[in-house]
Amino acid sequence: MPKSSEHRWVAPINLVRPSLADNTADADRLRAALTKAVGTPHVHIDREMLEQLPDRLRQWDYRANAVLFKDAAGSGILVHLAAIDAVDRLCGLAVDLGTTRVVLRIIDLTDGETLGESVFDNPQSAIGPDVLTRIHHVDKPDGLDQLNGLIVDGLNTQLSKLCERCAIGTDDIHLIAVVGNTAMTHLLLGLNPRWMIREPYIPVVNRPGVLRAADLGLGVHPTARMLVFPNVGSYFGGDLIAGILFCDMDQREDAAILVDVGTNAEVVLGNRHWMMACAGAAGPALEGGVTRMGTTAGPGVIDRIAIDPETLDFDIRTIDDRPPIGICGSGVIDLAAGLFRSAMIDIRGKLRSQRCGHRYRLHNGLAHLTIVPASRSASGKDLTVTQADLDSLIRSKAAMYTILETITGSVGMQPSDLDTFFVAGTFGAYIDPTSAIAIGMIPDLPLDRYHSLGNSALGGASRVLTDPACIDRIDPIRDAITYMELNVNQDFMNRFSAAKFLPHTDTKRFPSVVLPESNGS
Amino acid sequence: MPKSSEHRWVAPINLVRPSLADNTADADRLRAALTKAVGTPHVHIDREMLEQLPDRLRQWDYRANAVLFKDAAGSGILVHLAAIDAVDRLCGLAVDLGTTRVVLRIIDLTDGETLGESVFDNPQSAIGPDVLTRIHHVDKPDGLDQLNGLIVDGLNTQLSKLCERCAIGTDDIHLIAVVGNTAMTHLLLGLNPRWMIREPYIPVVNRPGVLRAADLGLGVHPTARMLVFPNVGSYFGGDLIAGILFCDMDQREDAAILVDVGTNAEVVLGNRHWMMACAGAAGPALEGGVTRMGTTAGPGVIDRIAIDPETLDFDIRTIDDRPPIGICGSGVIDLAAGLFRSAMIDIRGKLRSQRCGHRYRLHNGLAHLTIVPASRSASGKDLTVTQADLDSLIRSKAAMYTILETITGSVGMQPSDLDTFFVAGTFGAYIDPTSAIAIGMIPDLPLDRYHSLGNSALGGASRVLTDPACIDRIDPIRDAITYMELNVNQDFMNRFSAAKFLPHTDTKRFPSVVLPESNGS
Repeated sequence: MPKSSEHRWVAPINLVRPSLADNTADADRLRAALTKAVGTPHVHIDREMLEQLPDRLRQWDYRANAVLFKDAAGSGILVHLAAIDAVDRLCGLAVDLGTTRVVLRIIDLTDGETLGESVFDNPQSAIGPDVLTRIHHVDKPDGLDQLNGLIVDGLNTQLSKLCERCAIGTDDIHLIAVVGNTAMTHLLLGLNPRWMIREPYIPVVNRPGVLRAADLGLGVHPTARMLVFPNVGSYFGGDLIAGILFCDMDQREDAAILVDVGTNAEVVLGNRHWMMACAGAAGPALEGGVTRMGTTAGPGVIDRIAIDPETLDFDIRTIDDRPPIGICGSGVIDLAAGLFRSAMIDIRGKLRSQRCGHRYRLHNGLAHLTIVPASRSASGKDLTVTQADLDSLIRSKAAMYTILETITGSVGMQPSDLDTFFVAGTFGAYIDPTSAIAIGMIPDLPLDRYHSLGNSALGGASRVLTDPACIDRIDPIRDAITYMELNVNQDFMNRFSAAKFLPHTDTKRFPSVVLPESNGS
Repeated sequence: MPKSSEHRWVAPINLVRPSLADNTADADRLRAALTKAVGTPHVHIDREMLEQLPDRLRQWDYRANAVLFKDAAGSGILVHLAAIDAVDRLCGLAVDLGTTRVVLRIIDLTDGETLGESVFDNPQSAIGPDVLTRIHHVDKPDGLDQLNGLIVDGLNTQLSKLCERCAIGTDDIHLIAVVGNTAMTHLLLGLNPRWMIREPYIPVVNRPGVLRAADLGLGVHPTARMLVFPNVGSYFGGDLIAGILFCDMDQREDAAILVDVGTNAEVVLGNRHWMMACAGAAGPALEGGVTRMGTTAGPGVIDRIAIDPETLDFDIRTIDDRPPIGICGSGVIDLAAGLFRSAMIDIRGKLRSQRCGHRYRLHNGLAHLTIVPASRSASGKDLTVTQADLDSLIRSKAAMYTILETITGSVGMQPSDLDTFFVAGTFGAYIDPTSAIAIGMIPDLPLDRYHSLGNSALGGASRVLTDPACIDRIDPIRDAITYMELNVNQDFMNRFSAAKFLPHTDTKRFPSVVLPESNGS
């Protein structure tokens, strides 16, 4: 591949013209050049591409831009052939197929530039908000077709809009990289996920590989190829494999940890030699997750709270500075940290009525704390959290810490040994590590060891489209992962119980956390 | 692969049942077993096959019969999965896609047994009898679609009938192997052959590889795969590569020669180390070929003639012993040999009027020889050959011998050095080598060196279906072939001129041929 495109899927091709002395067929002549460009011994060319090939090569004087890709066996694929002076862009689409939200990113395959992004709610939410409800839905007549149709139609609709905004046609999309959890990718592929939730929890496929996007009903170029990231099992999806790729964990000598808290908490610890992984869904304490209390981030949602430990004034920030309508995960963690620093909750996370003062009230026997009074909230009602909400947060943070303790312990490390701590997802993007440390959710590491990756799933999918070397790393990453089932045994429960205090029963683990003086109950 | 099916594309599979300790997905579990069975590092499984996979594996207790194949890159393909106790046969279809005739053979993939065969005229003959007319036809509007539709529809119609006769369904066909000349395979694939007949004679594709039969409109099992044998160029098709495979030329230490005389004469000389090939279409002397005079073999066609050199009685044999309607290639060669032995033609092949006696007459200045008088022919008219027919035969036999001389000479051999002489096709099946030697068409070798292969093209296609090891030999055979353009230069023309005598100007080359005494002109 010429220097200029050394790291792209688009390769300029300039063939030796045929002659009586060199009468190789057009396709085989092209294939010989493509095998060099993509570095594989074989390159597949679709039959329908052959139909136009002879006339095109002659019309273009045997020069062209080729869009290439690799299949699951490591063979090359000619995905598209364009005139060297064609005006249409050659684009790729990265898809983060979340249970709740789907993110699309269009990338120019020639230079790797991002042309645009869009986010939309997964239309399968109409069937059910969570994975389990959707999987149960496939047992109804046409349930699978319905779920599959919702996501395929949703993708097509949103992609059309995004392409229009990017001033390209949907036909200009030649490569797609999809990441998602195992259930979401199965539903996109039209594969029945029913055995994933029944012991012994078997997906239909771990490595879906590379497919023709048109075969799935996606309205892109007819010969476009779609890579679906592999999964490790029913509870460990391609989104995290994409995250590992994105943070280059598989290429580093020192161990790093990657924590992705979305609907579930997923954790990977490793380096180029080994990787240990576990997912929070395996531990009942994280069911519902840290986001149970939190609203999805959006305008008016509280994402930052600071509490003055002296005056107990709440300093609240909302997204887009709109009147507050709710509180998201990062806000909840800030709140708990602030409440603890100002002694409004005790080390068990229980609200201390006297210290909370006018913000505290009992309602149907349940303690409530007012965050925003009715006069200043968007709804005209008090915006409150309850003791149940706080208890849930304490369980979640304890589960998170226990998972981190368990996974590091499994390789003879302590949480404090971690040099590099990647936090992925919206959780990572918005969370204040100081607050998360203050409540003992994450280890008390120097802040410069924490790195927010943003949407690492989308980032990993994008890298496969911009850097051909990445595609060869995906299966090795998948195969390197040792998945730990989080057996909730007595040892785990003991650690979990110890982590249910703020920041922890063993406060020596959190030397940077200033413990509040007890100001009465 | 278990012993019993060691050499078949059908492999019995018995998977380890999934458990909590072994929770590999169904497809990947199956794939691991299949890679062992087919001996490739990767096995592709179609997405639509995944749709039913989980339920089937559970229903079948993880046992099944798998129909496997290999793609052009050498990866495995799961073509079909059947219950271990299914009653439907697992079949393959070998296709000899001739310009004039198409031959189908259905094979049971489990045991390699031939279930049935059928022959039909290539329906493209309605457009034109020869390759050139059909290639010109593609330049008409919808010409290519029309030619493609004719052969696809013809195959589907004839296959349905054959399947019915074999008591199988068309859905029981899972693998297809197609051999044909380069133009015929292009038309089947819907690829435009127009550049094949324009300098520098470039086909669309040399190695079409393995395709989904359904994508070509063939009415077989929806996931069936079709291998189309590769070609070496526009004038050297997959039919001859299949012939090389069939006679194992690529596996022998000593050189052998393979001669296939169909519409064109094609010749390959070689062994496991090298192969030289040329095709008669490149030499103008063979245009129209040795079959120009001959009728296609069929009931009533003369396929054997013996002439008593003393009495000059003609002893004629017709196919099915029906009243004679014409004469086919082997009959023409017998005739020429007999005429020469009995001195009815001279060493230039010219009819000697006195010796021919009552059988000779001049008509419009052209000499005619009566083979069968009107009283005994099927048409009630004299069945004759003309001097022009004989001249044509002389040119053809001279071209054949010159080609054999040229190709052996190109590797420093003489025609007489040939230890093994394979003759393919109907020509090979019906010809009497003694007659062909007598006229100097083929070298004067001991008769036990001549081996008639029958339909070696169909045989090669069949072997790929019955012996998985054969598929890996196809591309190496293709790549090993050095194709000699038969440049009709002065040297070739000198040899050709020397070969235009009976049996040759250099009679020492044909010591077994008893030369007739000259009995006057």
